[in-house]
Amino acid sequence: MDYHFSKLIQGIRPSAADRMLEQMNDPELLSLAGGNPSPETFPIDEIRQASSRLLETDPIRILQYSVTEGYAPLRKAAREYFVSRGQHFGPDDELIITSGSQQVPDLAAKCFLEYGDVVAVEDPSYYLTLDTFRSHGIRLAGVPMEEDGMDLDELEKVICSYHPKMLYTIPNFHNPTGITTSLEKRQKIYDICTRNHVLILEDNPYGDIYFGETALPLIKNFDRQGSVILAQSLSKIIAPGLRVSACIANKRIIQKLVLAKRCADVHTPTWGQYICEQILVNLDMDEHIRKLRHYYKEKCSVMLNGVEQNFPEDVKRIHPQGGMFMWVTLPERFSMPDIVEAALDQKVAVVPGNIFFVDQNAPCQSIRMNYSTPSAEDIEHAVSVIGTILRG
Amino acid sequence: MDYHFSKLIQGIRPSAADRMLEQMNDPELLSLAGGNPSPETFPIDEIRQASSRLLETDPIRILQYSVTEGYAPLRKAAREYFVSRGQHFGPDDELIITSGSQQVPDLAAKCFLEYGDVVAVEDPSYYLTLDTFRSHGIRLAGVPMEEDGMDLDELEKVICSYHPKMLYTIPNFHNPTGITTSLEKRQKIYDICTRNHVLILEDNPYGDIYFGETALPLIKNFDRQGSVILAQSLSKIIAPGLRVSACIANKRIIQKLVLAKRCADVHTPTWGQYICEQILVNLDMDEHIRKLRHYYKEKCSVMLNGVEQNFPEDVKRIHPQGGMFMWVTLPERFSMPDIVEAALDQKVAVVPGNIFFVDQNAPCQSIRMNYSTPSAEDIEHAVSVIGTILRG
Repeated sequence: MDYHFSKLIQGIRPSAADRMLEQMNDPELLSLAGGNPSPETFPIDEIRQASSRLLETDPIRILQYSVTEGYAPLRKAAREYFVSRGQHFGPDDELIITSGSQQVPDLAAKCFLEYGDVVAVEDPSYYLTLDTFRSHGIRLAGVPMEEDGMDLDELEKVICSYHPKMLYTIPNFHNPTGITTSLEKRQKIYDICTRNHVLILEDNPYGDIYFGETALPLIKNFDRQGSVILAQSLSKIIAPGLRVSACIANKRIIQKLVLAKRCADVHTPTWGQYICEQILVNLDMDEHIRKLRHYYKEKCSVMLNGVEQNFPEDVKRIHPQGGMFMWVTLPERFSMPDIVEAALDQKVAVVPGNIFFVDQNAPCQSIRMNYSTPSAEDIEHAVSVIGTILRG
Repeated sequence: MDYHFSKLIQGIRPSAADRMLEQMNDPELLSLAGGNPSPETFPIDEIRQASSRLLETDPIRILQYSVTEGYAPLRKAAREYFVSRGQHFGPDDELIITSGSQQVPDLAAKCFLEYGDVVAVEDPSYYLTLDTFRSHGIRLAGVPMEEDGMDLDELEKVICSYHPKMLYTIPNFHNPTGITTSLEKRQKIYDICTRNHVLILEDNPYGDIYFGETALPLIKNFDRQGSVILAQSLSKIIAPGLRVSACIANKRIIQKLVLAKRCADVHTPTWGQYICEQILVNLDMDEHIRKLRHYYKEKCSVMLNGVEQNFPEDVKRIHPQGGMFMWVTLPERFSMPDIVEAALDQKVAVVPGNIFFVDQNAPCQSIRMNYSTPSAEDIEHAVSVIGTILRG
């Protein structure tokens, strides 16, 4: 049979993501290409204990169908946890459990966007969310990044020219650049968007992994008008294989997200929800997050030091203030794709930056390097391999 | 802020499903309205054992990100299981693990359908799948049901008039009617659709729960042209809270489904996939299914007997040959909504049939009654309550 695939799915190109996943299966490869949290941070013993306790005392509720909006005690525990980390809940805000925060743009697109609508995005941004929007027939309008967050003049121009219905932003330790949006810009992004009736989808997978003393407030914390949809994640602070995240927004938005989620997967699997509830309630989360921050900060330092020692001085780097990624931009004398290929020949994988841009075919000199997954030794080795290639 | 929800999500009405779920939370209510498998059929001990073994030996792989197409040993075990139950795998067929079979129409719509396209559906059909199509802007063309499956003349007319790209069908123990599509009609449905370049989405959540000696072959078993997308489920034979199902189709289709799934939820949670693999490999599934069939057949008999004894003779009933549901149609002298309300006043819930139709506002005399969830005693009592109402 001749298949006539939809225009939407034909717009999604498998190459970049598939290649990264294939690379992950090569045991000889030293990969800075992934974005996995380190398994050393998983609370494995607590998960084991919670699991055997729950399967002993409450197996049927764990194995039976459940409600779309999520297991009520987890919704409560997640809310209390996020509040303890500084998130404001407005009086009209509600929380829905989602199957990873990847599900949030998928549901939000269904609820708010029509085929052909425009979403403004940081350019570059997380490629899989861009693909999610593309898979709904959404046109993307890129807003260039500066070292303290998106270029606000460009944001205003994009709003003026393309009338986006939504802005997608990752203010904390942005993927792929590691950039932290400044407090001033967070407030202005909220003001500009709200004034122009643009919804904000704020994605916060890395917010708890800040390397300084305190975290900046979320854009959601400025939200008095119900115009921010916040995607929070437990993947980086508990474990990603559970696929348990949360979305917080005005209750009228949440009602629609529930309808869309029911059509998508009925509900997030029950075991993972119960486990997350038990972890949030029983684990000393302050202490756990302290350890996590320390752990990733150390990893980041190893990469930063390696880059300082091995990379030519004119390679531009952004010092991450948190998160899992470092973004470096090569001067014009290099061909970025050639450098990526040369590194791969020596069994070191990084992500070519172009896959994160709205226009994936535009010339690009940047690469993304991950320091959360590999060991300190592997980071040192990988960075020195790339440094040697760059120094010719 | 004034929200401008998409036309698509505005087309999804919460009332019916929400009401059913609310009713499930009323402990005094005796509900024939759900569709949950009986927890008595869950292999709880085996799940406990598999879980503690896996979390002991392989915690990191269970808690880390995984691949979109599904855990490879589960894909193998699921394939072998389905083959052992009589499903043919064509040489070009592949299998993807999905987050419940609910995810299959969602992904298939993204891969094959454009806004405004038509899908032919049995009328009535499973309301949540109809909503999934509606949430993609798909127009539904209903094909009326006969006691041996859909009316094929009407199917041909629908194809001629509306040019659907896809047919959605539940040939085994159809939800909501319990109807089994005859062998002859299965072959003809395949021939008619393939001749007209209409893809078939065959949904088989209840296929293993047949009450006779053998099951009829799936439509997928006739598939020589790669035109059938088969949604298989482990929800009814292992446990639904795991949200682990599988979709089998030509590998070129599966490749696209993988892209769509990655954008939707990255992958199905890992723990549930590992558990299902262990159950399929270690449990005597033939014996497990034998027990399950016997258990549900008994429950069905209780309901059938209750209906024979309590309902007026002119209430039309379809004798299920498997599955979880019984469909009864009241003569014109009754108002179906009034009967449903009167039963609810006496704390017995059933589903008004209209929610399963393409046109939910058309007059409807049918109700769906579930016998998988309530106990035999509760079935007897509930049916006698409805019988007393019907007899005035």
